[in-house]
Amino acid sequence: MLVVQKYGGTSVGTIARIKRVARRCLATQRQGHEVAVVVSAMSGETNRLLGLARRIHSDPSDREVDVIIATGEQVSVGLLALAIRALGGDAVSFLGHQVKITTDSAFSRARIRSIDAENVRIACRAGKIAVIAGFQGMDEQGNITTLGRGGSDTTGVAIAAALKADVCEIYTDVDGVYTADPNVCLTARKIERVTYEEMLELASLGAKVLQIRSVELGMKYGVPIHVRSSFHKREGTWVVPEESSMEHVEVAGVTASRDECKVTVFMVPDRPGVAASIFRPLSEHGIVVDMIIQSASSEGHTDMTFTVPRSDVGRAMQLLEVHLAELIAGGAHLKSTEGLAKVSVVGVGMRSHAGVAQKMFELLARERINILLISTSEIKISVVVETKYAELAVRVLHDGFGLDLPPAARAPTA
Amino acid sequence: MLVVQKYGGTSVGTIARIKRVARRCLATQRQGHEVAVVVSAMSGETNRLLGLARRIHSDPSDREVDVIIATGEQVSVGLLALAIRALGGDAVSFLGHQVKITTDSAFSRARIRSIDAENVRIACRAGKIAVIAGFQGMDEQGNITTLGRGGSDTTGVAIAAALKADVCEIYTDVDGVYTADPNVCLTARKIERVTYEEMLELASLGAKVLQIRSVELGMKYGVPIHVRSSFHKREGTWVVPEESSMEHVEVAGVTASRDECKVTVFMVPDRPGVAASIFRPLSEHGIVVDMIIQSASSEGHTDMTFTVPRSDVGRAMQLLEVHLAELIAGGAHLKSTEGLAKVSVVGVGMRSHAGVAQKMFELLARERINILLISTSEIKISVVVETKYAELAVRVLHDGFGLDLPPAARAPTA
Repeated sequence: MLVVQKYGGTSVGTIARIKRVARRCLATQRQGHEVAVVVSAMSGETNRLLGLARRIHSDPSDREVDVIIATGEQVSVGLLALAIRALGGDAVSFLGHQVKITTDSAFSRARIRSIDAENVRIACRAGKIAVIAGFQGMDEQGNITTLGRGGSDTTGVAIAAALKADVCEIYTDVDGVYTADPNVCLTARKIERVTYEEMLELASLGAKVLQIRSVELGMKYGVPIHVRSSFHKREGTWVVPEESSMEHVEVAGVTASRDECKVTVFMVPDRPGVAASIFRPLSEHGIVVDMIIQSASSEGHTDMTFTVPRSDVGRAMQLLEVHLAELIAGGAHLKSTEGLAKVSVVGVGMRSHAGVAQKMFELLARERINILLISTSEIKISVVVETKYAELAVRVLHDGFGLDLPPAARAPTA
Repeated sequence: MLVVQKYGGTSVGTIARIKRVARRCLATQRQGHEVAVVVSAMSGETNRLLGLARRIHSDPSDREVDVIIATGEQVSVGLLALAIRALGGDAVSFLGHQVKITTDSAFSRARIRSIDAENVRIACRAGKIAVIAGFQGMDEQGNITTLGRGGSDTTGVAIAAALKADVCEIYTDVDGVYTADPNVCLTARKIERVTYEEMLELASLGAKVLQIRSVELGMKYGVPIHVRSSFHKREGTWVVPEESSMEHVEVAGVTASRDECKVTVFMVPDRPGVAASIFRPLSEHGIVVDMIIQSASSEGHTDMTFTVPRSDVGRAMQLLEVHLAELIAGGAHLKSTEGLAKVSVVGVGMRSHAGVAQKMFELLARERINILLISTSEIKISVVVETKYAELAVRVLHDGFGLDLPPAARAPTA
């Protein structure tokens, strides 16, 4: 097998931990596998370097910040290669540009365009462990770029895709992906297998252990991703393509995202182009709008409601007051509500099971949790509730859909 | 003018000092010059990184050490570029491989083969200050290399040569190059102008402020080098080609190197190939032999004396005992003497002034300093004395040749 392993900053945070990672890489190789390893900067290092940059410039150039913070991973790969050699293994380090990880030029949040992992392949075939710097790449002009927080996950999956590896193992400090946040829901269970689609929808759970772009990339190239702990050898969570043989649990997990705000534009004329006029100024200013609901029309008017992160609501309201001045003069008005949370249930099984939404609403109603907004996709149902009910909602839905039980023991809804 | 400035680790050792360097770069640019800057790692950073590597591997791979320590300069260039921007200037950083500083593959002590500074030239012409990482390069295979301690000086002069710059300013924490070590000789004076040849011979003075390879490179490409303090604006020492208009002082400076050892092989058969048989095993084991003196032959035998650094003398004696076993069986024998120092006077003016050697011997004799070995080159005379006399010898020669006076006030010897 060809195995790509990715270790995060915590896993390489000290000299002792780097040595432990080296032992793990070598153990994998000694099982007869070819091994390529992607590593992050030692924990705290990226923040230390960012701190230096900010002490010099309050709003530092992204290009130069990328030059500075890319050194964190460079140190890590050198040290890990030395640690593997110290244990009698053979290893060689590669920086982003040495593996030709070509990205666009969006410094600090670049996206990978291509990889030429031939050097890595040659090293692996020669019995070496290839140690590759995560998080970094180079644009077409030869500038150093970085991929954004969590970017080493994406490097790991991209390298695995380029090498056509059998698996990309993402080592982290948790056991895997859970059916709900274990801090909120004591009955949360580790998920054994989850589809890429589900993992993407489980973002608010998954983002803590896996950069979402790495999941998109895994899905695109069919790379099996294994999220597991670097502290023990038990299996973690496999993120894999949907297969007919997979158990189709109705609901794979329950997530909650806090700090949502609801904005409603009342009395909007019900005519073509109005929605665009509302959302254009927001998107032009980089405000991400999440759920959008248009209520039924009445007497030629409708209400338009949407959610934005709390950090953006002030700016969103200002922009709308300016850009909708004409509508407002015509009788429309704006209202924002803070203190909301979005609670979602996610599962590919929903597609073939009616009644999941109905059951969700009943479970919440039984606890007298009022639903303010509803939005559904093929494999996700989201509701917006007051933040104070968010944790209760997660627990009720989690156990109500049987996620406290092993998949085989769960009763279908309909 | 096109000015290349090089700042060492002390000059960029803190955020405050980086800001001061930024002001100096901008001040130079605002005088109407194009400016490219080469910087070292922040002081202490290279040692910190080496320490990490050695905590992992007692004898770390040079390739991986170079990957690790090259990050020091990478952080510096990013920070300095940000500091220049914070002051309202425009700057862009370049790493070794981005300026195509191609080296051989001798990791940790690589030599530059070529530079393509076109990117730098374009940036300078566009009004930007180009900030270039010193000390680092890339070999033909794309591996990161470093140039050895003081390598940033060499980067500076190499960039200046590639750009055909008008001057390469080497900023350091001393005022320039002195006629003798000011800690030894209170009357030592700053040298205003010195030729490349003299500077090379003044290695033991110059090495503290200027990597010797940078002088060789400056000589090869005719780059005027200006060694000066980063703490004030006074002129330092210019290292320049020899010109007829230059004042030909007989002696430019006096140097001393301690920790020399003398090795003598007595009763060597006086036949061709014997010298080679003595020095081959030493050079094969990387032992640098300095002065070599062969005494007059007598009855078909001669004595061969040479000096080596004290750190190598044990190994040198072992090697000779093994490799000269046949000679030793035939009557030759070995002797080593420690506790010696080499004191030299250097100056291009010597070529046209007879009597400098004679005057040197007389000055030493007057103080009853015994000379153990003598070696001369075109512009240097060296003597080996007991270490306890080294400082006295430097002071006596310095003032004896009038170096305590301004060049114009010195009386010629002959």
